Amino acid sequence: MKKSLGPKAILGPTPVMVVATFNEDGTANAMTAVWGGICCTQPPCLAVSLRKETLTYANILQRRAFTVSLPSEDSLKEVDYLGLVSGREVDKLAAAKLSAFDSEVVDAPYVTEFPVVFECKLAHVLELGLHTQFVGEIIDVKAERGVLDHEGLLDTKRLRPLVFLPDRQAYYGIGSYLGQGFSSGAAL
Amino acid sequence: MKKSLGPKAILGPTPVMVVATFNEDGTANAMTAVWGGICCTQPPCLAVSLRKETLTYANILQRRAFTVSLPSEDSLKEVDYLGLVSGREVDKLAAAKLSAFDSEVVDAPYVTEFPVVFECKLAHVLELGLHTQFVGEIIDVKAERGVLDHEGLLDTKRLRPLVFLPDRQAYYGIGSYLGQGFSSGAAL
Repeated sequence: MKKSLGPKAILGPTPVMVVATFNEDGTANAMTAVWGGICCTQPPCLAVSLRKETLTYANILQRRAFTVSLPSEDSLKEVDYLGLVSGREVDKLAAAKLSAFDSEVVDAPYVTEFPVVFECKLAHVLELGLHTQFVGEIIDVKAERGVLDHEGLLDTKRLRPLVFLPDRQAYYGIGSYLGQGFSSGAAL
Repeated sequence: MKKSLGPKAILGPTPVMVVATFNEDGTANAMTAVWGGICCTQPPCLAVSLRKETLTYANILQRRAFTVSLPSEDSLKEVDYLGLVSGREVDKLAAAKLSAFDSEVVDAPYVTEFPVVFECKLAHVLELGLHTQFVGEIIDVKAERGVLDHEGLLDTKRLRPLVFLPDRQAYYGIGSYLGQGFSSGAAL
């Protein structure tokens, strides 16, 4: 017998994403977001939902591009900070001692220190309520060689990505490997 | 110096979600999906992306409703199976020894054995390419009392949700608690 909790936005775990954009003056801004992820494999697209008052919201509509970086556990404090403060008040990247690199394929920067980045062109804007969903077509993915395995795939143990559990608003690491997709259930 | 991997749909970790719908004849179907999550907090909405050939795609358009359940690690084999086979070929729930319960708030069933369920009314349909994104407004969330903590919040240790790493197509558990959101970065 399940207990009703009411209509709550508590589905998780979520990825922890850092969305980077150019400000009007060409400087870089970055904010942390947890609502989103891949939404189409062909063309490869990702979605990220942002509130209208964020500087990132205005920047994406202006430049029609953004990047999403996946930080590792080591950057937890910096990542949380990027979600706490607005780029309208402070140069967050400088305050967090992070640096930005200009993407060569989309009109947006990305955070140099984070090991994986998805470079996106804006494809769709969906107004949902408090949040607006931006769908970006992934033009390229770039990763540090140190987080790739011998087959060139992202190595979870090396990347050590963050996950977020929304109901407790808590960050966790990735746990044990449990099994392979599209095969663990084949016996049934 | 980052290495270009090309445009790949490999952002993760993702949640592991079981989407349940009514078939045309009123029987229940369920499939596993990993592309999606919360996309708006007010009104609370979640998104899930599905391929057009799935039975779930047709069912959602017909009934304008669906549920999303979060299974625990214990159900890994059943969950993977629900993503491997089409409900057009077999009664997957019966084959996986799972049962369905009719939601009282939306026109969809949910899987009884999975501890948390999000009951959704279809709010938006976004055609993206190979995948179509369905946005559902969350009408209610229901959870087994055994996965709630003393404050009535989802307890990660009791729920033990699955996560999926898309590039390796592998399931993992949740790892160590690393810190609190909206506070770990306050010192910066």
